[in-house]
Amino acid sequence: MSGLKGKVAVVAAGHSRWGIRNATWRELAQEAGRELFKAAPNLDRKQVDSLFVGAAEPERWAFQSHVAPLVADMLGIQPWRVVQRTDLACASGQSAVRSAAMAIATGLSDVALCIGIEKMNLPNMAESQTSMACVLDREFDGPHGASAPPFFALTAQRHMYDYGTTEEQMALVAEKNHANSCHNPNAQFQKPVPKDKVLSSRMVAPPLKLFDCSGITDGAAAVLMTSAERAGDFTDQAAYILGSGQSAIGGNLANLHSWTTWEPGRIASREGYKMAGITPQDLDFVESHDCFSISEIIEYEDLGFCKKGEGGKFIEEGNPYIGGKIPFNTRGGLLGMGHPLGATGVSQTCEVLWQFQGKVPRQRRVDGADLAMTHNLSGAANVHSVLIWGRQPSVGG
Amino acid sequence: MSGLKGKVAVVAAGHSRWGIRNATWRELAQEAGRELFKAAPNLDRKQVDSLFVGAAEPERWAFQSHVAPLVADMLGIQPWRVVQRTDLACASGQSAVRSAAMAIATGLSDVALCIGIEKMNLPNMAESQTSMACVLDREFDGPHGASAPPFFALTAQRHMYDYGTTEEQMALVAEKNHANSCHNPNAQFQKPVPKDKVLSSRMVAPPLKLFDCSGITDGAAAVLMTSAERAGDFTDQAAYILGSGQSAIGGNLANLHSWTTWEPGRIASREGYKMAGITPQDLDFVESHDCFSISEIIEYEDLGFCKKGEGGKFIEEGNPYIGGKIPFNTRGGLLGMGHPLGATGVSQTCEVLWQFQGKVPRQRRVDGADLAMTHNLSGAANVHSVLIWGRQPSVGG
Repeated sequence: MSGLKGKVAVVAAGHSRWGIRNATWRELAQEAGRELFKAAPNLDRKQVDSLFVGAAEPERWAFQSHVAPLVADMLGIQPWRVVQRTDLACASGQSAVRSAAMAIATGLSDVALCIGIEKMNLPNMAESQTSMACVLDREFDGPHGASAPPFFALTAQRHMYDYGTTEEQMALVAEKNHANSCHNPNAQFQKPVPKDKVLSSRMVAPPLKLFDCSGITDGAAAVLMTSAERAGDFTDQAAYILGSGQSAIGGNLANLHSWTTWEPGRIASREGYKMAGITPQDLDFVESHDCFSISEIIEYEDLGFCKKGEGGKFIEEGNPYIGGKIPFNTRGGLLGMGHPLGATGVSQTCEVLWQFQGKVPRQRRVDGADLAMTHNLSGAANVHSVLIWGRQPSVGG
Repeated sequence: MSGLKGKVAVVAAGHSRWGIRNATWRELAQEAGRELFKAAPNLDRKQVDSLFVGAAEPERWAFQSHVAPLVADMLGIQPWRVVQRTDLACASGQSAVRSAAMAIATGLSDVALCIGIEKMNLPNMAESQTSMACVLDREFDGPHGASAPPFFALTAQRHMYDYGTTEEQMALVAEKNHANSCHNPNAQFQKPVPKDKVLSSRMVAPPLKLFDCSGITDGAAAVLMTSAERAGDFTDQAAYILGSGQSAIGGNLANLHSWTTWEPGRIASREGYKMAGITPQDLDFVESHDCFSISEIIEYEDLGFCKKGEGGKFIEEGNPYIGGKIPFNTRGGLLGMGHPLGATGVSQTCEVLWQFQGKVPRQRRVDGADLAMTHNLSGAANVHSVLIWGRQPSVGG
């Protein structure tokens, strides 16, 4: 079970600008790839033996299937060990990172490039949104109008009913993450959004308002991965995988055991902590999946940072801020960065590396961070994915 | 590099009926899953910690993204280690098998279920075929009308021009594979198609006629995978992975170095042989990617069974038949079985296990087979994927 622990290193990262981009999916891939190659001056592209592409729906948003070899071609690499694209909707990026990690841990790959890409903005946005609705169960939930915003809105309503969570508490999450993304030059949103602006923004699906929702975003992000032994060939400050967990329970909404307790999130994080040999309290920061403001509140609870139902209070008391007990989403999260589905998990990985390397702007930096977690959920929060990262290949190492 | 060798076992297989099925993609998944569970009576579904789904374009053909958790739900499993879907177009199935193998070889997964599914027949077949065209490069090749049949037709024309390959030789491939699929109750096509019938069938893209082309197929196939150490918990006759190779070179058609020499096929198979420590001549049978009859002829050459340009002669001389030097596509190949993209690579894996177990009908059985290869290509033959299989976890073991 300790298969990945301490064996795999992320040694360089590259990121495109995110937003409504006047660029094709290929151009986004090239932009992130170019930045990655700049960050790995010791890399000869001929060394890249494997390619992992995270993308959720290029078949719909870019009218292109079989994207992996086209990406290889655009980046000027000719992988000869493993080549694939992984899809896990909103968690496609982390899925690609996990796949690359497996390839390296087995020794199948020596040097792997992992890139997440999504081009979501189309001239006809109704078409883009219809495709987004494919992420939930189209046969059973589609007829009821359940796409992501209504699903998370119902989740929020139930959390408010069960635990007294307030719209103000949710607005604090949006305010915090937008404050962080102000200091991220790659973010889609780089202006402060104070709590009152969140609360007075346009209603999307009650109680979720515009700024409670992540954006529809074009973007890419890439990382270079190798074994812990070879990390020194590329950098003197890598990020090492210490733990991994992923759990799927339930398909359509009628099968969810609970809307407000995300059992797969509990299981995935428990598995991750167990493999890493740590507790949530050991972490220095978390990049979590705040697709909606309510998501981050439930994540405080189910990833183990506060008791069930106390997520709202957790942010009210200042815990998930930079300088607080456990900073959440220093990058700006999905709310501030935007959420190009396949790229998000890879971008979180970039943030972990850059935090460890002290490369992020002072305002969003977590000084001396040694341990971090990246977390994604997908679909109707019925799949959760977690990776635990260390500045060293072993805890306290 | 020997990461997978001898560590991973396929211990049970299940297969749906393939063809134009009056069934949804979910029902196909359930059908294959049901057969798999029947074949693994010692399995408690709670043991399945990981799920790998191979599917090429469920977003288009089934209007459904994020299929992995829905499949888990349909099969009654709740994986908690790795959950994902892999896409590599026509090689999506093998890609899922490789991913599962990596998870097991790292120790991340103990028991993994790997399933390939594709539902390609839609009420509006023009729509289905348009989606199929996404598999090539839509931006650069789409405007020239390049989808799979014209691409492989041009490949055939060039192979005929360069090496004197004939339409009759291609027809022999179709005849042979249809003869094999007559003895496969899961096949889409179960009637003999003599050479003359191939030659007189409707022209699709010159020189390829209807029976030179694989079908548009609905189907699923599933395998249960575990470590070599644990194989005995489920069966006394498993199939073990001995080698793996995968290579991507070139994107759009203008970037292909050659149309008639498939360099990535040479590299992928060379890598596979090297890891397994064998030569092509050691193999007892091959399940290769005969998406079109010309493909199998080029595969005789580039996978190492005859000299360049002699593929036509290779079949004329009787080599790739059951009882010949090296049987190709005992299952019936893509030509006889049909080709539900994501399911094909998994179905080939089922065939390897069943051949090793002596479970296939006598007419297509390769008695005493110890070593086999599965091969897939995808897109414009710009990616090739290979796995080498042994009846024992080590060569001669």
